[in-house]
Amino acid sequence: MEGYFDYAATSPMDEGALEAYIHAARNYFANTKSLHDPGTTAHDLLEHCRNTIAGLLRVEQEGVYFTSGGTESNELALDALLKAGVGKHIITTEAEHSSVRNLIHRYEEEGYRVTKVPLNEAGIINVEDVERAIQEDTVLMAVQHVNSDIGTVQPVQHLSTLCRAHGIFFHSDCVQSFGKLPMEEVAPYVDSLSVSAHKLYGPKGAGAVYIRPSLSFPPKIPGGTHEGGVRAGTVNTPGIAGFTVAAEKMVKERPHNLSRIMEMKRTFLNAGEWKLVGHTTDNAVPIIGLLLPEMEGQWAMLEGNRRGFHFSTGSACSTGNHEPPGTLLAMGYDAEEAKSFIRLSFSHHQTNEQVEKLAMFLSGLSKPTAAR
Amino acid sequence: MEGYFDYAATSPMDEGALEAYIHAARNYFANTKSLHDPGTTAHDLLEHCRNTIAGLLRVEQEGVYFTSGGTESNELALDALLKAGVGKHIITTEAEHSSVRNLIHRYEEEGYRVTKVPLNEAGIINVEDVERAIQEDTVLMAVQHVNSDIGTVQPVQHLSTLCRAHGIFFHSDCVQSFGKLPMEEVAPYVDSLSVSAHKLYGPKGAGAVYIRPSLSFPPKIPGGTHEGGVRAGTVNTPGIAGFTVAAEKMVKERPHNLSRIMEMKRTFLNAGEWKLVGHTTDNAVPIIGLLLPEMEGQWAMLEGNRRGFHFSTGSACSTGNHEPPGTLLAMGYDAEEAKSFIRLSFSHHQTNEQVEKLAMFLSGLSKPTAAR
Repeated sequence: MEGYFDYAATSPMDEGALEAYIHAARNYFANTKSLHDPGTTAHDLLEHCRNTIAGLLRVEQEGVYFTSGGTESNELALDALLKAGVGKHIITTEAEHSSVRNLIHRYEEEGYRVTKVPLNEAGIINVEDVERAIQEDTVLMAVQHVNSDIGTVQPVQHLSTLCRAHGIFFHSDCVQSFGKLPMEEVAPYVDSLSVSAHKLYGPKGAGAVYIRPSLSFPPKIPGGTHEGGVRAGTVNTPGIAGFTVAAEKMVKERPHNLSRIMEMKRTFLNAGEWKLVGHTTDNAVPIIGLLLPEMEGQWAMLEGNRRGFHFSTGSACSTGNHEPPGTLLAMGYDAEEAKSFIRLSFSHHQTNEQVEKLAMFLSGLSKPTAAR
Repeated sequence: MEGYFDYAATSPMDEGALEAYIHAARNYFANTKSLHDPGTTAHDLLEHCRNTIAGLLRVEQEGVYFTSGGTESNELALDALLKAGVGKHIITTEAEHSSVRNLIHRYEEEGYRVTKVPLNEAGIINVEDVERAIQEDTVLMAVQHVNSDIGTVQPVQHLSTLCRAHGIFFHSDCVQSFGKLPMEEVAPYVDSLSVSAHKLYGPKGAGAVYIRPSLSFPPKIPGGTHEGGVRAGTVNTPGIAGFTVAAEKMVKERPHNLSRIMEMKRTFLNAGEWKLVGHTTDNAVPIIGLLLPEMEGQWAMLEGNRRGFHFSTGSACSTGNHEPPGTLLAMGYDAEEAKSFIRLSFSHHQTNEQVEKLAMFLSGLSKPTAAR
């Protein structure tokens, strides 16, 4: 995977996480709800994982529910906050991950009113715009921590202050930030947050949602017993064990990874003249979004693929739609401009040399020669 | 796991399935929606798995959607059928798995009327009772293939005939039958069916739902791109690969496993005088439900656990509720009688000797001596 620059779409499983998966699949396979010893042993492992993930997320253990991934986490969280609150108005952005945008669309169909606040030219939400969007019956704000297309960090703490002043519940999608940015900058400020294992070298099919335990909400489906009644279905203990090991490693090694990511970003940025989308040069998020001069991102992506460079034209979860990334629309780009967008996402596993090669390839692309 | 008799709650992962998981996690980790080579390679594997699972299920590939497990499969199927049909009346049984019962309860809250048809003393639904339950606006029938508490097989084909005559959509939960009974006895007769990987030695966190492709229904959440828009979220390719390998093996080895299961059932039944719940001696389902004489199932379960025998008092997904198994209520047992219920579930991996030991333990329990 020398030329893989699509870590924001998904990452390969860490070998330690895979080992944890295998160990749990072999030795802790029983149903965590079974009351015999194999069941309680599996249950103990599950609760150990919950405790560890809660610690890494900087939240109370009682609010952590394991899910099948980020999409389900977002759904459980948003549904819970809407049921816990009163009001029919939602504030969000067009730049949210498709799983949130699609849910918001469903809520609109169900009768909620939605205000989508734009992002400024830096790719960041203006707190003043949000303040103006607040209505009498605003019940929920859904704003991501880190943007999945361009890697900008949203002002979660300022948004939280606004939400608390107006009695609005605040959900933040932390799928792209967990393991990469300090969660203490988000967790204390939100009512719910969602994370996914496969974005931080954990297994696919595992994730978690945190919902503030003091909130009172009915379960999506009544009568469930797994995950405190919040999420039904036999718990994927091996996946959760792998998730936990992967997340622990990412948080532990964050200082080292952070310096590697910053170095790679510098290497890339110095290796060409790029039209970056949003201000992301000063953060440690391993995502860069850029516009190619007079060239479709789709074409560059395919040409890159042919040469062994694998990147994307936006979130993989939206690619089937042939729609421009919502982030660019939220920033005011028109659909035509957005066509030349590509997303690069890095990993601390990569070398500077790999990044230099990618930059060389992209620079070559973006300088049309006489022959073209 | 010498004394593990709770295979209906969950099964350990087959080593071949685990190998497939590991191989896919290492070599097919990319997002199946990514348009570069690693993505399309992962996508190809996914479609290969879909083709294989469809073949094993005896259904059209276009109707197969991968999910996180049986619970999610049941939800997607029932939601789809209700949206595809017109009418506000549902027919089901109290003996369904809790994931179906809980959903039906939610539909009731949403305004659907529900008729729960009883099971007869054989643990089987009477087709005449179902016929009488049909109303003008019956839209959906949800009846399991194999009962998860006592292992009885429901008359899917007769029910299907009724449903087709009255324009009713028919869903059957096949979680306990896939890999154990021939799917050609169910698949052609239903509009949707659900299966789970971890019940047939596949990984937890993977399953599938089949929804007849000719049905027209809006997605649960609009705008998704994964799984034909029916199920959002990055696909768990390694889990699905493991599921596929496990399912293939189970179907291929079914004739052999079937004779092993029948032999074990005979061994068990001949080793004591049991008060069986439902007629299950003549089928190859590895589940037996029985009532212990003057003894709480809960007590027997704990005593068994102490001696290394691990079985349950009903579906693990309901144990937290301290409610008697719905199956027994559906058969007319009262809550007091149902307290003495235990469920034994076998595996072709077990030996006759293990089964004899279990029978000896249970016989000992069920013959109170003067000392007690």
